[in-house]
Amino acid sequence: MTEHTVCVPASLLEGRVFQYLCEAGASTVSARAATQALMHASLMGVDSHGARLAVHYATMLRGGRINPTPNLTLTQTSSAVTLMNADNGLGHYAGYQAMEKACEQALQAGVGICSVAHSTHFGAAGAYALHAASQNMIGIALSNSDANVALHGSTVPFHGTNPLAAAAPVQDGLPWFFDTATSSIPFNRVRLYRSLDKLLPPDVAATQNGQVTRNPHDAFMLLPLGGESYGFKGAGLAGLITILSAALSGATLDADMIPMTDTEDHKTYRNVGHFFMAINPEKFLGASHFKHIMKTYLASLSVCPSTTPGVPVLYPGEREWQIRDARLNQGIILDQQTYSTLFS
Amino acid sequence: MTEHTVCVPASLLEGRVFQYLCEAGASTVSARAATQALMHASLMGVDSHGARLAVHYATMLRGGRINPTPNLTLTQTSSAVTLMNADNGLGHYAGYQAMEKACEQALQAGVGICSVAHSTHFGAAGAYALHAASQNMIGIALSNSDANVALHGSTVPFHGTNPLAAAAPVQDGLPWFFDTATSSIPFNRVRLYRSLDKLLPPDVAATQNGQVTRNPHDAFMLLPLGGESYGFKGAGLAGLITILSAALSGATLDADMIPMTDTEDHKTYRNVGHFFMAINPEKFLGASHFKHIMKTYLASLSVCPSTTPGVPVLYPGEREWQIRDARLNQGIILDQQTYSTLFS
Repeated sequence: MTEHTVCVPASLLEGRVFQYLCEAGASTVSARAATQALMHASLMGVDSHGARLAVHYATMLRGGRINPTPNLTLTQTSSAVTLMNADNGLGHYAGYQAMEKACEQALQAGVGICSVAHSTHFGAAGAYALHAASQNMIGIALSNSDANVALHGSTVPFHGTNPLAAAAPVQDGLPWFFDTATSSIPFNRVRLYRSLDKLLPPDVAATQNGQVTRNPHDAFMLLPLGGESYGFKGAGLAGLITILSAALSGATLDADMIPMTDTEDHKTYRNVGHFFMAINPEKFLGASHFKHIMKTYLASLSVCPSTTPGVPVLYPGEREWQIRDARLNQGIILDQQTYSTLFS
Repeated sequence: MTEHTVCVPASLLEGRVFQYLCEAGASTVSARAATQALMHASLMGVDSHGARLAVHYATMLRGGRINPTPNLTLTQTSSAVTLMNADNGLGHYAGYQAMEKACEQALQAGVGICSVAHSTHFGAAGAYALHAASQNMIGIALSNSDANVALHGSTVPFHGTNPLAAAAPVQDGLPWFFDTATSSIPFNRVRLYRSLDKLLPPDVAATQNGQVTRNPHDAFMLLPLGGESYGFKGAGLAGLITILSAALSGATLDADMIPMTDTEDHKTYRNVGHFFMAINPEKFLGASHFKHIMKTYLASLSVCPSTTPGVPVLYPGEREWQIRDARLNQGIILDQQTYSTLFS
């Protein structure tokens, strides 16, 4: 990529992102939550979901699509379930509050679910899964999104890239941490390859007629994880996430949701749905025992021989924790455009 | 395939499978549950997990690896969580009882989890997810299994094919139903291709050195879903299933578990772990509302245009329900060897 980049210390970036969202009208609590989630992604190396999104959110806060001063409504319906109306505020505020509520209920009930409707983009799902893991819970965070992934065997997009994130605490170590879209690549990758005029990897995208293509300029939608042969698996997973995030909460289904980007409509609410679950190992064999087993599991994973000499086998999240260490020390690299917009 | 096959009426097969398991010593309740799960798979077209497995189970019941007369122990630890010790009996008995308990707790708590250790192979995970859906619950069933799937980027198998099954009730229709391994293909497919001396599909299996191969005779282990490029996604999912099924319940981790097949050891307990969860839509927006949304979702899916003219786009489970209809009418096709063993 020929694009110019700028390296910014994490603390400076964090302060600026918060201020930038506040300037766009976001309430202190929602700007703080969004900043925390964006910094999670920027520090862990998930730049697509990092600080650059603040610019998008500010546009939507100003346009009215995101409510700058949401009033979250929580309705606890049972010992383990709470419903949240996110009042169209920044999804990160809803996300942290919802996972917090799920953890609170899991303390007694053993598991807690907070089902969220009337939300907006919540950034990287992993932020909320890790929030649960930091409280010694197994956290699971799901969200639906606007459709840009083909249904398996169909010529039209039907599901979003619907992320699944999970995290689990580990004795004497950082959490196991897994955050994935249910497509092989994000659509941003297609945009990047267009700008580079470079062939896409095989079996990840399709044309408007549903034909698999490697030409990024012809790529109209993504294929579900598993590609042309096994995409029914990725599509089934995406469907499960739609069911848990949207059908259960009353949010808009993926195919009916207005797009997050590439639209002039900055005003209409999108009614995104999320699903947050915390599972409390204390109500199973005990949190210390669970964390010990997790340590054993990861130790046994880490000694698996690699197919590439010199390249160690990593557990989910391990690379991200390494990037976080490096970026806390060395700063976060921003593209010139994001830097100029945020720091102008 | 040149193998001879025999078509058997479903009711006849069901009676014979039950009797066959009883003859191998299985208690009535456990033989009944195993028969129900095997017939689920045989009817839905999942022949790898159907009636043929009765022969394997009988061998293990006689060898002592499966306890023919298990005494299930259930310990409810909170409003939403129960732990089960399956006493090394047929995993199907544990499976139905555990999902039943999860549903019972979900009635009040909104979600129920039953965590099972000291179990054995439970057949097709989908049987238990559907059991929950038949009670108007969203059902999720997971299990770990002995390692035959490479860790992404490693030369050794580390996770099992670890299935994920989910089902959800639909207004005026059969449940949405998704049952998948976290590898692209099951290892049985490799065995089949060996017997046919036919090249495997690309990107699904690896040699003992971890090199991707299409030669079924060189294939030593499977690749996780996503293959060589995106297998970290399948491996992460498999890991999540190991964590929920085994680390949480105290079952044996995949890499330490003795193999299900290809072993002379018919005596040693395997301590397989399962995770069953029922989510009660009644504690969200109401079961009728949820089922109505599911109907809308599937209606919108069903009108998606197909990439192959004349081949309709199907929702997860739709093909399986069609096969079930056909097999209830026309009978179930068994390979000659299974037929001879069961009906001799």
